[in-house]
Amino acid sequence: MSLAVPQGFRFAGVHAGIKRNTSRQDVSLVVSDRPASAAGVYTKNLVFAAPVEFDRARTPGEGFRAVVINSGNANACTGERGLRDAEEMARLGAAACEAQRDQALVLSTGIIGEFLPLEKIAGGIRECSKQLGTSEDSLVAAARGMMTTDTTHKLTGHSVQIGDRYFNILGMAKGAAMIAPNMGTMLGLVLTDAPIAAADLQTLLNAVVDDTFNSISVDGHMSTNDTVLLLANGAAGGAKLRGAELEQFETGLRAVCGDLARMIPTDGEGATHLISIEVRGCSSKAAARQIAKTIADSPLVKTAIAGADPNWGRIVSAAGYAGVPFNPAKVGLLLNGFKLYENGAPVSFDGSEVSTSIKNNRDTIIVLSLGEGAAKAHFWTADLTAEYVRLNADYHT
Amino acid sequence: MSLAVPQGFRFAGVHAGIKRNTSRQDVSLVVSDRPASAAGVYTKNLVFAAPVEFDRARTPGEGFRAVVINSGNANACTGERGLRDAEEMARLGAAACEAQRDQALVLSTGIIGEFLPLEKIAGGIRECSKQLGTSEDSLVAAARGMMTTDTTHKLTGHSVQIGDRYFNILGMAKGAAMIAPNMGTMLGLVLTDAPIAAADLQTLLNAVVDDTFNSISVDGHMSTNDTVLLLANGAAGGAKLRGAELEQFETGLRAVCGDLARMIPTDGEGATHLISIEVRGCSSKAAARQIAKTIADSPLVKTAIAGADPNWGRIVSAAGYAGVPFNPAKVGLLLNGFKLYENGAPVSFDGSEVSTSIKNNRDTIIVLSLGEGAAKAHFWTADLTAEYVRLNADYHT
Repeated sequence: MSLAVPQGFRFAGVHAGIKRNTSRQDVSLVVSDRPASAAGVYTKNLVFAAPVEFDRARTPGEGFRAVVINSGNANACTGERGLRDAEEMARLGAAACEAQRDQALVLSTGIIGEFLPLEKIAGGIRECSKQLGTSEDSLVAAARGMMTTDTTHKLTGHSVQIGDRYFNILGMAKGAAMIAPNMGTMLGLVLTDAPIAAADLQTLLNAVVDDTFNSISVDGHMSTNDTVLLLANGAAGGAKLRGAELEQFETGLRAVCGDLARMIPTDGEGATHLISIEVRGCSSKAAARQIAKTIADSPLVKTAIAGADPNWGRIVSAAGYAGVPFNPAKVGLLLNGFKLYENGAPVSFDGSEVSTSIKNNRDTIIVLSLGEGAAKAHFWTADLTAEYVRLNADYHT
Repeated sequence: MSLAVPQGFRFAGVHAGIKRNTSRQDVSLVVSDRPASAAGVYTKNLVFAAPVEFDRARTPGEGFRAVVINSGNANACTGERGLRDAEEMARLGAAACEAQRDQALVLSTGIIGEFLPLEKIAGGIRECSKQLGTSEDSLVAAARGMMTTDTTHKLTGHSVQIGDRYFNILGMAKGAAMIAPNMGTMLGLVLTDAPIAAADLQTLLNAVVDDTFNSISVDGHMSTNDTVLLLANGAAGGAKLRGAELEQFETGLRAVCGDLARMIPTDGEGATHLISIEVRGCSSKAAARQIAKTIADSPLVKTAIAGADPNWGRIVSAAGYAGVPFNPAKVGLLLNGFKLYENGAPVSFDGSEVSTSIKNNRDTIIVLSLGEGAAKAHFWTADLTAEYVRLNADYHT
């Protein structure tokens, strides 16, 4: 495996009986052998889950030794008891690596509105603590322990050279949509052996999250549990990174988060295409992002790509209702490199050639240019297929 | 037919060769025998069609004698030539009832990005002018001439008594979604024989449109062509309505527009349920409407209803990301009258009983209460089925 595993972290994932299928991991434990600083970004949903409340109160912060993860139960809409359960889950995770109760963070994903099966989770953590390792198998098991309707685990890593020091950044994530009985949500865990103070870590995470995890969608439904945690344990040694060193580190962090973010719509429920939308020529990046997101959220755009239909009217009209002012007469559109629209007017093109290009490529590349300025933004989404509807209509609580 | 047809209007709809299927009307003509005042409301999409530009410049206004309608071609994204074509279409419609060229309005719906087939439209208008009538057949033919993927025509009428005078209000509409090759959009035409000045007509239309046509969605994709026109020809006689008389008239107008609006998601592409969402207990109507619209636009809510799944977590979590502040601990939810969620906590309920209720009723009634105030709002949408995806993915330009 070519993944650059950061020093000083160990991993495990086991089946603890939360998911019915006994071949599926549902509890994972990630341990840092030395105290790590941690940063987090969280769902903006007013209806947020207990693990979000728990972690948000503790990050950015120093001294973390463990992250405990479970899938199959989101511990969301569970009130006061849910928060006590999250605290107990953290306590169990900390105890498993002989740390203090306030040295663990928690991640949960799965059913909304049911209480955590704490005995199963306690058993899973015990089992994980015996299996902790740094092998590819350990890593994959930990990544699989956060999966719900994902069809594959999501792991990536990058190395960064800063001066004469090398640091590794490893990321794992899950997410394919929400699916009944309310499975779903996006979780990300990024680990590095670089020495970085918690406040700097939070600044770095905030800086990259808009262009990565906040620039993807599957179905536009914001979850109660979305969380990305970033831990830095400094096991690679040396003084804390500062100034330009942090900027160099940010490049690697951006690469890891970008990889993970794109893996999510790629594995979107029922998806047959990853749609990459670039909006160029805007007066501001925020304007470009707003237009790209509006195109990404249009079911008509998403079904057109599923059907390999170069239906530029749907893309241009979605841009028109994004709430961003622009001159329609200056708009141009490329789809997989084919020019379909220019200066606000249709261009003659070979529809079957473009359709074949969409059909034969898993990636669809949309580039919309507005001619209003120099700013641009990217957004990634999945196409919308009948299989998505089947997955979400045919499950029952 | 129990429809109250306003006096002084005549109707026709014919097949003029724009649609391939020769049994489908694609050009309609509505003539007022006397000059009528007119008001309009239009799409807010920056990418708006030529007929929208044409009508918007002329309403509110007085002296209109005709509305010419075509389906099969939206005359959108067609630049300067599109606007000239809309002008020519209006001129042809006015000439057919021996009116001046500035006495007609136009409505178009269908393919985006192709030029209007003006010869076919001219032929259709000629044929319509021979067939104008007030029979049920004439009315239905005119209503069918604005259909695209609609499975049924949409007509409704109400009568209003004001003092000792009776006025009739008739409405027709079309809309089921947008569908490749970019068919779709929402059109509405409301006619009355009441005498109302153009400025008052515009005020009335503005007052009712938010609670009716602006409170529905099928797929959340705002069209380039959305238009509702309201014409009043005063053929019922008497002095212009004013003051409290206008308020009495508004009640009837609200009923007609509400009927037409709900007919659209009822006939939504692939829809098996009309989902009615009421959000209560809000601090303002705008807040209630924003939450109701966010729930209506969630594909996870729409697929849950398609699958007869009483999946309250999807509804509550959609409310949480609507951008409106509320206390999650005070939220309650009823679905088809069953209590599923109360004071921010799950309620024990018989899932199969609720599921059967969804399955056996075309209407699904969601009532979310927030406990923040006394304001409320309604929103109506269609469920999301695999058939919607097939309709929109399997057509090709």
